Amino acid sequence: MPILHNIATLAMCRADGGQAAIHEILQAALVWEGETIRWVGSEADLPGDFDAMERRDAGGALVIPGLIDCHTHLAFGGWRADEFALRILGTSYLEIARRGGGIAGTMRKTQAVPEDALRERAKGFLREMARLGVTTVEAKSGYGLNVEDELKTLRVYRHLQSEQPLGLVPTFLGAHVVPPEYKDRRDEYIRLLCEDLIPMIAEAGLARFCDVFVEETAFSIEEARAILETGNRYGLRAKLHADQLSDGGGARLAAEVSAISADHLEQTSPEGIAAMAEAGVVAVSLPLATLYLNQQPMPARRFIEAGVPVAVATDFNPGSAPSYHLPLALMLACTMQRMTPAEALKGATLYAAQALGLDTHIGSLEPGKQADFTLLDAPSVNHWLYHFRANAVTQTFVRGKPILDFGF
Amino acid sequence: MPILHNIATLAMCRADGGQAAIHEILQAALVWEGETIRWVGSEADLPGDFDAMERRDAGGALVIPGLIDCHTHLAFGGWRADEFALRILGTSYLEIARRGGGIAGTMRKTQAVPEDALRERAKGFLREMARLGVTTVEAKSGYGLNVEDELKTLRVYRHLQSEQPLGLVPTFLGAHVVPPEYKDRRDEYIRLLCEDLIPMIAEAGLARFCDVFVEETAFSIEEARAILETGNRYGLRAKLHADQLSDGGGARLAAEVSAISADHLEQTSPEGIAAMAEAGVVAVSLPLATLYLNQQPMPARRFIEAGVPVAVATDFNPGSAPSYHLPLALMLACTMQRMTPAEALKGATLYAAQALGLDTHIGSLEPGKQADFTLLDAPSVNHWLYHFRANAVTQTFVRGKPILDFGF
Repeated sequence: MPILHNIATLAMCRADGGQAAIHEILQAALVWEGETIRWVGSEADLPGDFDAMERRDAGGALVIPGLIDCHTHLAFGGWRADEFALRILGTSYLEIARRGGGIAGTMRKTQAVPEDALRERAKGFLREMARLGVTTVEAKSGYGLNVEDELKTLRVYRHLQSEQPLGLVPTFLGAHVVPPEYKDRRDEYIRLLCEDLIPMIAEAGLARFCDVFVEETAFSIEEARAILETGNRYGLRAKLHADQLSDGGGARLAAEVSAISADHLEQTSPEGIAAMAEAGVVAVSLPLATLYLNQQPMPARRFIEAGVPVAVATDFNPGSAPSYHLPLALMLACTMQRMTPAEALKGATLYAAQALGLDTHIGSLEPGKQADFTLLDAPSVNHWLYHFRANAVTQTFVRGKPILDFGF
Repeated sequence: MPILHNIATLAMCRADGGQAAIHEILQAALVWEGETIRWVGSEADLPGDFDAMERRDAGGALVIPGLIDCHTHLAFGGWRADEFALRILGTSYLEIARRGGGIAGTMRKTQAVPEDALRERAKGFLREMARLGVTTVEAKSGYGLNVEDELKTLRVYRHLQSEQPLGLVPTFLGAHVVPPEYKDRRDEYIRLLCEDLIPMIAEAGLARFCDVFVEETAFSIEEARAILETGNRYGLRAKLHADQLSDGGGARLAAEVSAISADHLEQTSPEGIAAMAEAGVVAVSLPLATLYLNQQPMPARRFIEAGVPVAVATDFNPGSAPSYHLPLALMLACTMQRMTPAEALKGATLYAAQALGLDTHIGSLEPGKQADFTLLDAPSVNHWLYHFRANAVTQTFVRGKPILDFGF
């Protein structure tokens, strides 16, 4: 049982106490056995039984639970860097789509990438995420947009679960947009999702959640309800991309279908917030997308005041959030969404775990939980997210081992 | 004469062509001799005379001029991480000042730090900046706010010029705020600046520029004019912190006193912009401060349309911009200020050099200029500032040598 000691500050991030409660312990120690945390507390209180155990010096680090990125579009082909420059100067999304860009552009590039190449590329992203302190990643399909390529993407995620150390949680997002070839026969695409893909994916155990992009340019409330209810019947619990560009009632639908999370929520109405609070839906905020799209930020304080847990994730994708830098997303949650560093951290640990249904297993540093934790060169959580550096992480542990020990 | 070849894209960033012109060369090569660039062009056009020269493989990197951070408050004591969390939840700056925080708090901490400790700390910041591709840094005093500690800060900068490889350009900012002990005798402090400090600093060659924070809570237009004109007379050319929190006429004053740059400018009026264009004043935008203070961004496009060169810098300081991450400032210039990646890059190279009066010497990759350049793991400038990673820099060269060769 190794003991990590000389920890200047350890943030436990237990479930109790709400968004701001991260349960900091000064001069702390952490004890684990194999993959599981055994003891957490003040170093001065270390039980005598541990005296003979191997000690590792944290060098005065800040120790936090391994970060959880609960909303990414991890596997895709190509990039869209040139669209970035076009959009800055005012070219509309519609015009970009007309030139073959946007989601449909990434769809074509993703369809063209062989499965093993897609897997190697996603693995490279996971490697950089691990360096940034991330230990669990949710990963959506949604750039395949046909039977073959949606299954290809989800198989990439399945294989990555055994080929690299980070936790990976797959989500089926066949309902990302209506693919161009179904433009005039939307119902047929929705039938394909509900009658073919969802049953096949559920049967093969290829995804844990079913997600829908609810937006004027994507799926209506009625369409989303049909897809999410089908997902629910097949054991794929609902997630939603909701109210990003307009208040389309996505938050209320999330409550209605007992979604585990609703994500984006820049434009959600007070009624939508109240419905989510009532139904216990986690709000996932995505401040990198807000920044890259130059939008109004998600009203995080209103969610927090209403008692809705606010998670923070990157939304990593090649269009609206081409960065997997979760610590930057947390800093932006502080500066743009007016969340304190403690609130933001809770949003990328315990509440992110909750948005993935994994909060009994990961997301906090407590006995019995998986030994996923990150060491930071910072004296406190406030300091870490205030003094933004290239990377303050000095080590990331997954299941009790430094990621380097996995050859990763 | 080493030759750097296999450069996927090289951005020259010459003066001609305006903000967006960065003169990209695909499949480029760069030749230098000692500290000076000798040849830049397409690898296919390398003159035969260079055939026998030592070749270094850039590995398909993007190569840009070494980044120039033309506005920092580099040397200070302490941090103010806890104020960050307080401000997020709405505690006013005045209330924080009442509790001993704010600039006066940093002033007390800076006064308490011995000169050698202040120097070592600033050197540590410079080391991390170099890792981010920065090769020249402007550094302001302004947390000493008395004769002894302003001189101490400027001596720190002088010694750092020979103790580490980056270029360092010192600016005297005695007029940062009126120190608390002069609250009721402002004129006396301004006399101290004009009659004692400016002459002493000019005499000792301790600063290149004289800067004033023009703002309701700092110095009035009339006070600033007196200080800047004194600076001008002593050969310390003017810089201004202008129009950050309100349009206080700082931009017009900058034009009037022939300032080399006016910085911040979030609230500058069209008249102020026109005056700066007319007088050839560089506009220095500081998007990290905009983000951390949750303000409206500087209207970069209006400056660009008016023909004012827009530089981009970090404003690194322990209050409103506690980050020296210049690539992040550039990404924010793109997302918040609607500058393209090319425009932002020109703002941290040639135009930043211009804001320091060094544009004949550094800021672009041209024969005769200093061999300061940065290698990035990115295929293009667009891609670099779009796909934000912890640090895309693979190597930074100063005066023809990798920073590691300086033992830095």
